[in-house]
Amino acid sequence: MALHLTSEQRLDDGVLERAFTLGDIPGLLWTPAAASAPAPLILLGHPPLGLHRMYPRLVERARRAAADGFAAATVELPGSGERPRWAAVEQARADLRRAVQAGEPVSGEIVDALILPLVDRAVPEWQAALDALLSLPGIGGPVGYSGGVVSIGVRLAAVEPRIAAAGLFAGSFVPRAMFEEARRVTIPLHVLLQWDDEGNDRQAALDLFDAFGSRDKSLHAHMGGHTGVPRSAADSAARFFVRHLR
Amino acid sequence: MALHLTSEQRLDDGVLERAFTLGDIPGLLWTPAAASAPAPLILLGHPPLGLHRMYPRLVERARRAAADGFAAATVELPGSGERPRWAAVEQARADLRRAVQAGEPVSGEIVDALILPLVDRAVPEWQAALDALLSLPGIGGPVGYSGGVVSIGVRLAAVEPRIAAAGLFAGSFVPRAMFEEARRVTIPLHVLLQWDDEGNDRQAALDLFDAFGSRDKSLHAHMGGHTGVPRSAADSAARFFVRHLR
Repeated sequence: MALHLTSEQRLDDGVLERAFTLGDIPGLLWTPAAASAPAPLILLGHPPLGLHRMYPRLVERARRAAADGFAAATVELPGSGERPRWAAVEQARADLRRAVQAGEPVSGEIVDALILPLVDRAVPEWQAALDALLSLPGIGGPVGYSGGVVSIGVRLAAVEPRIAAAGLFAGSFVPRAMFEEARRVTIPLHVLLQWDDEGNDRQAALDLFDAFGSRDKSLHAHMGGHTGVPRSAADSAARFFVRHLR
Repeated sequence: MALHLTSEQRLDDGVLERAFTLGDIPGLLWTPAAASAPAPLILLGHPPLGLHRMYPRLVERARRAAADGFAAATVELPGSGERPRWAAVEQARADLRRAVQAGEPVSGEIVDALILPLVDRAVPEWQAALDALLSLPGIGGPVGYSGGVVSIGVRLAAVEPRIAAAGLFAGSFVPRAMFEEARRVTIPLHVLLQWDDEGNDRQAALDLFDAFGSRDKSLHAHMGGHTGVPRSAADSAARFFVRHLR
């Protein structure tokens, strides 16, 4: 798929933000103000809420990456933002909402229907984005993957050899099939878990961490609820990428 | 109990190391090379293997504390090092060794007999050490507690109001009674866990972390076995004290 740069702006800290399309997929790319050598790239994962809604948090993560000398990029997830609705996933989301509102446990069927098609479709798109981004001047390897839907991170870490390190957020529903894929992950992992996130299955997160095949993996659990990751945790994740991508 | 400074040496990085006795308890105190104001103090916990054997790891932690502007101190545990043997705890250790060598589960009775008397006797000694150390020139508050027998840290954090933050190593046997004490701990906690430590009860460590009453608590699990805490984890623990003691 061809990548077309569609607009650019210089942020106040000198970071260059460029919007692009990859085929019909919107994306954003941030590069440090000044770089003498090609910058390692961090792919910024995000939940399927649309790039526009996620922009404030994405740009904050991108600025931090740029301050550490890294480029950062993200693409819209299938069925999110301005991309066409996706009936199967809309249905699974409606089923999920219904179960949560009724106070029922979320069944494995709902989780599978919600997550597995998203992983199957998003991962090749992120790989295509990698192909295109790494061919741009000023961007090199190694590549990191950070955050977002944890199952997308697990699949990418398992199948994409250009990804050298991943920071994962163990905070969303995990299909049982992903635990088997987790065993095949061997790259360094930095896993965040919000311990008191009531919408999260803590035991599943611990089981997923245990399943990873990586010899270098660490789990960092904090308080503060789903969106309350403390500043110190973001700093620690940033240092993880500095250790592994430089 | 009176504190007597018995010897001193200047380490190569300028840190002043002083040996002392507190009554008949040996101890060590490290202070930064140069300090304009009284330095906050970190109490360095350690396993009951004797200060002499633990010295290399203690001095490394003390140098790091001094580099961050902190004084550090430790005292010998009852029944360890050059202090008189303690029949009841020696018996519990022999029972523990026998159970481990026979591949049997370590009973709650053995854990209680091993840990509870040690906590009951050590905690008032560390509090007496605090009284004496905080009256020395150049040492002030706030006070941190770091590492060692986790149950001693839990009790100290629960009962000693001068301790403002604690870094705990969830890596030893925990009597059931300590989970109740953990609920009364409310200070900021930074808890380390070696995920693949085969001599450790991982579920007990997770349960203990969950039990802490602190709103600001974080758990950091790494690979590398009981003694394989990675450098990045030590850095992260040091930053925790910088955030909370300065």
